[in-house]
Amino acid sequence: MPPRVALTMGDPAGIGPELCLRMLVDPAVLAETTPLIYGSRALLERVARACGLPSAPESSVVECGSLDAASVVPGMVDAACGQAAYECIRRAVEDAMAGQVTCIATAPVNKEALHRAGIPHPGHTEILAALTGSPGVCMMLASDPLVVTMATTHIGLADVPGRISTERVLGVIRLTATAVRRLGGRPPKIGVCGLNPHAGEHGLFGRGEEETSIAPAIAAAREQGIDTEGPIPPDTAFVPARRRNYGAIVCMYHDQGHIPFKMLAFDTGVNVTLGLPIVRASVDHGTAFDIAWKGVAAATSMRQAVLYAARMASSEVE
Amino acid sequence: MPPRVALTMGDPAGIGPELCLRMLVDPAVLAETTPLIYGSRALLERVARACGLPSAPESSVVECGSLDAASVVPGMVDAACGQAAYECIRRAVEDAMAGQVTCIATAPVNKEALHRAGIPHPGHTEILAALTGSPGVCMMLASDPLVVTMATTHIGLADVPGRISTERVLGVIRLTATAVRRLGGRPPKIGVCGLNPHAGEHGLFGRGEEETSIAPAIAAAREQGIDTEGPIPPDTAFVPARRRNYGAIVCMYHDQGHIPFKMLAFDTGVNVTLGLPIVRASVDHGTAFDIAWKGVAAATSMRQAVLYAARMASSEVE
Repeated sequence: MPPRVALTMGDPAGIGPELCLRMLVDPAVLAETTPLIYGSRALLERVARACGLPSAPESSVVECGSLDAASVVPGMVDAACGQAAYECIRRAVEDAMAGQVTCIATAPVNKEALHRAGIPHPGHTEILAALTGSPGVCMMLASDPLVVTMATTHIGLADVPGRISTERVLGVIRLTATAVRRLGGRPPKIGVCGLNPHAGEHGLFGRGEEETSIAPAIAAAREQGIDTEGPIPPDTAFVPARRRNYGAIVCMYHDQGHIPFKMLAFDTGVNVTLGLPIVRASVDHGTAFDIAWKGVAAATSMRQAVLYAARMASSEVE
Repeated sequence: MPPRVALTMGDPAGIGPELCLRMLVDPAVLAETTPLIYGSRALLERVARACGLPSAPESSVVECGSLDAASVVPGMVDAACGQAAYECIRRAVEDAMAGQVTCIATAPVNKEALHRAGIPHPGHTEILAALTGSPGVCMMLASDPLVVTMATTHIGLADVPGRISTERVLGVIRLTATAVRRLGGRPPKIGVCGLNPHAGEHGLFGRGEEETSIAPAIAAAREQGIDTEGPIPPDTAFVPARRRNYGAIVCMYHDQGHIPFKMLAFDTGVNVTLGLPIVRASVDHGTAFDIAWKGVAAATSMRQAVLYAARMASSEVE
């Protein structure tokens, strides 16, 4: 039985519904999975007509929420759309927790629309952490050339050093090592970046974060049998000869991981939330309101999200 | 008359002397410059023999300091070597300020050897700033695919936000714009990165550094006629479609610039100090003590340093 993947349609006014419809007729997706769209049938029908795509078969859609599909304007930020996007996620999480679906692949949501709908979370990661009661999540970006995880993500640079604790870095290393095994086909070694230039150069730069927090986390991970290396000077971790050695590289902050990742996998990357009781992957781009419902959205990242989620969820690795 | 380039030999126990000797017989270097080694004749003779390279002609060496060449052990950190490396830089700066040489290309020094010799500066940039009385210097890394400059460099990540002022960012933009024109053949537009994830996303992440310091610096640069764009979300600034638009990208901290630069130009990059009254370029690697005097050091980066320095110094642009 192929894994059943819940595709949440994302913000109805964005490119999410189109991407989900494309997945229903995508040969690579159909070869490995059974995709199910969590969304609004009426809305999907409008988008299918607008984009010249086949309608979604009745059995391929799980109706969520109570969106007034006729009132949706493509490309508009709207509280009703934020609410609808949230309802799809909530239902998909419920079904994944109950084993009704194997995993979730999420189309993009709009932060402002969620906010207007009164959803007290800025994005997927926080919604999923709250819905599943998972405090220790972390973001992974995955692609063939590079996999990175981040110890901190959407916080200011000034707030990063205070969040780098041994406990957090060790937690992220552990999540990363498991994810790398689930991904399959990658080297087992986990690289861990330093925080400061040259990884602090023996305490010369920075406030000793490498010695105080990062090195002890690496030592503890090794004691737990995880093949871990670091703290690596951040500017050499990602050069071709070096990055090839690592199944994944643990980064200390958003741009330390996002800069090299986007250089190597701009629109083929997948965003996976680690530390949840369910497997969830996401496209690595936004709602693209400017091209919504036009039939021109590239489905590369959504396809990768579906395939990564299915493969990780089907892995025998615990 | 081709530009006369002072090559400082760097730490005698490292690969610097070998790299300088190779420049004297390098066709690309000889086609565009007259190279002069600032070093110790006796030491260069020892290295030439050890590496199987031709001796340096008398007229191609400017004798600096009073190194006991016979006592140098390749690969060893030594106060006498630190002192000798410093003397070469001091003399080259003196000659460049006096117009005896057109510019300087520096081979690598050893931070620890300088320290043992009582030199109160950790590296070239600080030595050059002190010797020429230049307070507002900044580091540029240059290569064909990417040029970056840094508003801050060798400080801890926690200290970066406090150093990002409008004055500093504007100063770096101005130095960068001039350098880009001197380099020639690059787009005139200067990209400027934000400090925080997504360039702060309208104040959502960070402490408003984009609004308070970076955006005003960009506005002031534009008023001064500099084609400037930003603050750019750091993780999209370096993707291929984006970076091609910029003659250079101004970065806020060491790894924001070094990570993408080293990915694209690992051993062909050149480090140029901007804001000095003289032109100085440097190799983008260290003393490589493990392969010193073995005749196997790659001269790619040193060659680029010589050629970049000569071209920038010969530019008509003020």
